[in-house]
Amino acid sequence: MRQSNLFAPTLREVPAEAEVISHQLMLRAGYIRQLAAGVYTYLPLGVRVLRKVEQIVREEMDRAGAQEILMPSLQPAELWKESGRYEEYGAELIRLHDRHDREFALGPTHEEVITSLVRNEISTYRRLPVTLYQIQTKFRDERRPRFGLLRGREFIMKDAYSFNTDWDSLNQSYWGMHEAYTKIFNRLELNFRSVEADAGVIGGEGDTHEFMALANIGEDIIATCTCCSYAANLEKAESGPRTISSTDTAVNDVEKFHTPNIRTINELMLSLQIEAHHIFKTLIYLVDGNAIAVLIRGDHEVNEVKLKHYLHAQQVKLADSATAEQVTGAPTGFAGPMGLAIPLLVDQAIVNTPHGIAGANEEDYHVRYVRPGSDFPLEHVGDFRNVTEADPCPRCDNGVLDFYRGIEVGHVFKLGTKYSEKLGAVYLDSTGKEQVMVMGCYGIGVSRLLSAIAEQNHDEHGLIWPSSLAPFHVHVIPVSVKDTQQMKIAEEIYQHLLRKGIEVLFDDRDERPGVKFKDSDLMGIPIRIVIGKHATQGNIEFKERINSESIIMKIEDSLLRTLELVNIN
Amino acid sequence: MRQSNLFAPTLREVPAEAEVISHQLMLRAGYIRQLAAGVYTYLPLGVRVLRKVEQIVREEMDRAGAQEILMPSLQPAELWKESGRYEEYGAELIRLHDRHDREFALGPTHEEVITSLVRNEISTYRRLPVTLYQIQTKFRDERRPRFGLLRGREFIMKDAYSFNTDWDSLNQSYWGMHEAYTKIFNRLELNFRSVEADAGVIGGEGDTHEFMALANIGEDIIATCTCCSYAANLEKAESGPRTISSTDTAVNDVEKFHTPNIRTINELMLSLQIEAHHIFKTLIYLVDGNAIAVLIRGDHEVNEVKLKHYLHAQQVKLADSATAEQVTGAPTGFAGPMGLAIPLLVDQAIVNTPHGIAGANEEDYHVRYVRPGSDFPLEHVGDFRNVTEADPCPRCDNGVLDFYRGIEVGHVFKLGTKYSEKLGAVYLDSTGKEQVMVMGCYGIGVSRLLSAIAEQNHDEHGLIWPSSLAPFHVHVIPVSVKDTQQMKIAEEIYQHLLRKGIEVLFDDRDERPGVKFKDSDLMGIPIRIVIGKHATQGNIEFKERINSESIIMKIEDSLLRTLELVNIN
Repeated sequence: MRQSNLFAPTLREVPAEAEVISHQLMLRAGYIRQLAAGVYTYLPLGVRVLRKVEQIVREEMDRAGAQEILMPSLQPAELWKESGRYEEYGAELIRLHDRHDREFALGPTHEEVITSLVRNEISTYRRLPVTLYQIQTKFRDERRPRFGLLRGREFIMKDAYSFNTDWDSLNQSYWGMHEAYTKIFNRLELNFRSVEADAGVIGGEGDTHEFMALANIGEDIIATCTCCSYAANLEKAESGPRTISSTDTAVNDVEKFHTPNIRTINELMLSLQIEAHHIFKTLIYLVDGNAIAVLIRGDHEVNEVKLKHYLHAQQVKLADSATAEQVTGAPTGFAGPMGLAIPLLVDQAIVNTPHGIAGANEEDYHVRYVRPGSDFPLEHVGDFRNVTEADPCPRCDNGVLDFYRGIEVGHVFKLGTKYSEKLGAVYLDSTGKEQVMVMGCYGIGVSRLLSAIAEQNHDEHGLIWPSSLAPFHVHVIPVSVKDTQQMKIAEEIYQHLLRKGIEVLFDDRDERPGVKFKDSDLMGIPIRIVIGKHATQGNIEFKERINSESIIMKIEDSLLRTLELVNIN
Repeated sequence: MRQSNLFAPTLREVPAEAEVISHQLMLRAGYIRQLAAGVYTYLPLGVRVLRKVEQIVREEMDRAGAQEILMPSLQPAELWKESGRYEEYGAELIRLHDRHDREFALGPTHEEVITSLVRNEISTYRRLPVTLYQIQTKFRDERRPRFGLLRGREFIMKDAYSFNTDWDSLNQSYWGMHEAYTKIFNRLELNFRSVEADAGVIGGEGDTHEFMALANIGEDIIATCTCCSYAANLEKAESGPRTISSTDTAVNDVEKFHTPNIRTINELMLSLQIEAHHIFKTLIYLVDGNAIAVLIRGDHEVNEVKLKHYLHAQQVKLADSATAEQVTGAPTGFAGPMGLAIPLLVDQAIVNTPHGIAGANEEDYHVRYVRPGSDFPLEHVGDFRNVTEADPCPRCDNGVLDFYRGIEVGHVFKLGTKYSEKLGAVYLDSTGKEQVMVMGCYGIGVSRLLSAIAEQNHDEHGLIWPSSLAPFHVHVIPVSVKDTQQMKIAEEIYQHLLRKGIEVLFDDRDERPGVKFKDSDLMGIPIRIVIGKHATQGNIEFKERINSESIIMKIEDSLLRTLELVNIN
């Protein structure tokens, strides 16, 4: 394509509204434009990348035996009421009324629609399993849309759903999708991890894995083992057992001491000149309305998801200070594990500590030499905390946990019978008995991937697309369009490469070389062929976007090198 | 693909809700399913056809120099208020509020969004012209969604917009798109006409053409010349001059006669034993609130669009009977052209008639021998009627008009400055002077095309897809999956064709042959290879869906014939 015709308005300034580099560069290089908060138009360069990502996703879905369908965005509210999510989904679900005042939702996801489709069309085990997918626009009224395509209100997803006769069959579909996702993200040349995740609010039972693109701006923390393949998100990650080697063998009795106005772990550490892991931190939670206490080490954080699972609770939240004061008898900052009348959940790491310092349940007092088991009960011991960096791996003997930030780009999920039960998706098994279908769902954030890939592939000058995704493979740039010899050679190279099936952007604009190179760097086309002063000797400057230096080479060599690098099959 | 895995639920019964054959067959053959009125899910077969249509559209758009973008469905209401369409569009525009109570529209079309995009990004004549397109889901809350994909509330369109410096440039873009559309519909093997149409309610000025797929269920009537290339929709079609050869040379004076309770053209015809073209029909209209009379022949229909244009009116509607009685002095059925105090618009065909019978503006009376010019004024003469079949062509001397029904599948439209003025899309011309951009818009009903194509390609047994659009090129059907030799041959044919890049559906289901053939006919795959009793002699049955008979041929021959017919390039 001739660049003089290309609609790719580039910006020299960094747009004020863009906080992260991928967003800045996609705006500056003319890939996207914002229409409203979290709502974007894809310009020609953006669409070209988008279509390539979609095509890779489509090919691997097809190869894995999934079948493409296309479901509507307009979804009757009745279906969402059947599943119970019409209320549950909250403000993220965009609701509307049609001209007959019937309620609709704009699909943020399609469990209801697909389950209703399959319940109507499949009634026998002989038509199962089946995995259906679509690549389609989703709507979620995010409270805080941000980072460009990373968290939008209108975005493109690939969502797939499997319908299985039983959990064994679901496992096969699930791991088939897991494998397909791995292939997709590899083909996208993404630096990613598949991490164990918590089933969380989508509901359902069983395994779930998130595919995380590693990036500093990621909203999620993931923990990976330095030795084995263990990886999990922070909600889910566990640590192996570890005891603090204690040189302190004294078996002193509990001792109360005065700590006026010392309420936080930090204040205690400063005042007593001790480290946080010597402190036992007591937190009061409301669990479905009932108060409980949780005891963890001062250097640890409570993991509410783990609490929820342990207690089979719907809702877990920190108690307000009035409640805390009522159950501990002391104001915030002085709660302790001793003598409580409410259930006390003790984190495993506490049990491994001989003794510690804790609140005295009395204003301005703490206690020391508090021993697990002797001074407070160990009826409820478990893993109630977030792992920390350098915690031992829960799977292998040698590794410790490393932390990364990740962008969730994919998610595979065992839904079980959550939706099929509510919506009545049943089938007759081989004995003629009615059974409930078992479901899985599998999502990829297609438009979000553009952000994730850009976040991993750029430098200070602009984007650096992998060849398989680049809007064009080659950027052909004559230094001066007024130089007829340069233009003739450039045109020949352009035509030659086009004939070979290579996507070429030909910068035929009458612009200064500096402008052309700046635009080229911004856009991030992998190969650049510059026809300049060496043209008279039959040479061009060949530069890969990923390298800082260009190489002077013969025109013929540059063509061969290009074919080699692009490697179209 | 193996049919045992294909999610394509077929129906034996004709679904009660489907009125037209294309809708019935797409439901029965498992291409689509309805989710809500006018809202459909595309099943795997439907998606395969849809993607092929999209790809043809995309290729021809790209070839014509248009650039693909993708705009959002969520459109801020402010933009629609700027263009003045937020109120004007009425109930078809789906409106919603986001969580911050900001108003949005779900895009039924994208003039506002694209004009706002281009006004922000292009400011100089050097970046013009540009044509941008998208293939995207549209939302229109149709009052009466019907005929499956033909008139839906959520549907897929290709919409393109050109931005030009002036009308000459717009003409180039316009005819470039017209040519691309012609190529697209030819590649889709559609029986279509490009017809002149009225600019109508979208607004703007100048030419507009509709691309009509000919079909009996079409909602539009189009008139085409039997000799030349003239074609127009009924709103727009004109007829050439024609005089009624009259043998009646009497010059009698106007004569009033008693016609008790005879109010309609039909009643007059019966009572007087005359033909309708001898009657002058007087209709009272309200034009932007003012009453006028329109006089046309009894066998003609008023064309309100032509009235509107003649009178430069916003709104034209038949007057209520009270108004009619007030201005004519007679109840409905007895209005006539003589002695009216309101403007009288006389259709050209009346002027060409020596005399006729008309209402007397008096209850229960008509008049005969009423002569144009003598008995009523000819101040306002024009073309105020719909053409009729066999009217002379307005363009050539030899042809007459034929009527067809058509489905509008494409539309090219000169918008002029309607949107660019309202939204301030201006540029600096080569002299540095600010000018308003001139726009064109160009739509193709992508999902609707599936219905139009199906409407033109079917028989009583099912669909008959053109090879370029079929979900699969070849249907390989072993008569009995229990016959190992049949299955071995079928598998070999399947694998052979797949290797050649042909899309094959392999009916590996353990079903009776009758069921398999019925399903195959329904689905409409162009080539069928049946491996049955002749397999032992190395023969198969080869059948093109479009032919009623199958041919026994050698396996090798059938493979060659298939490659020839599919002709993948």
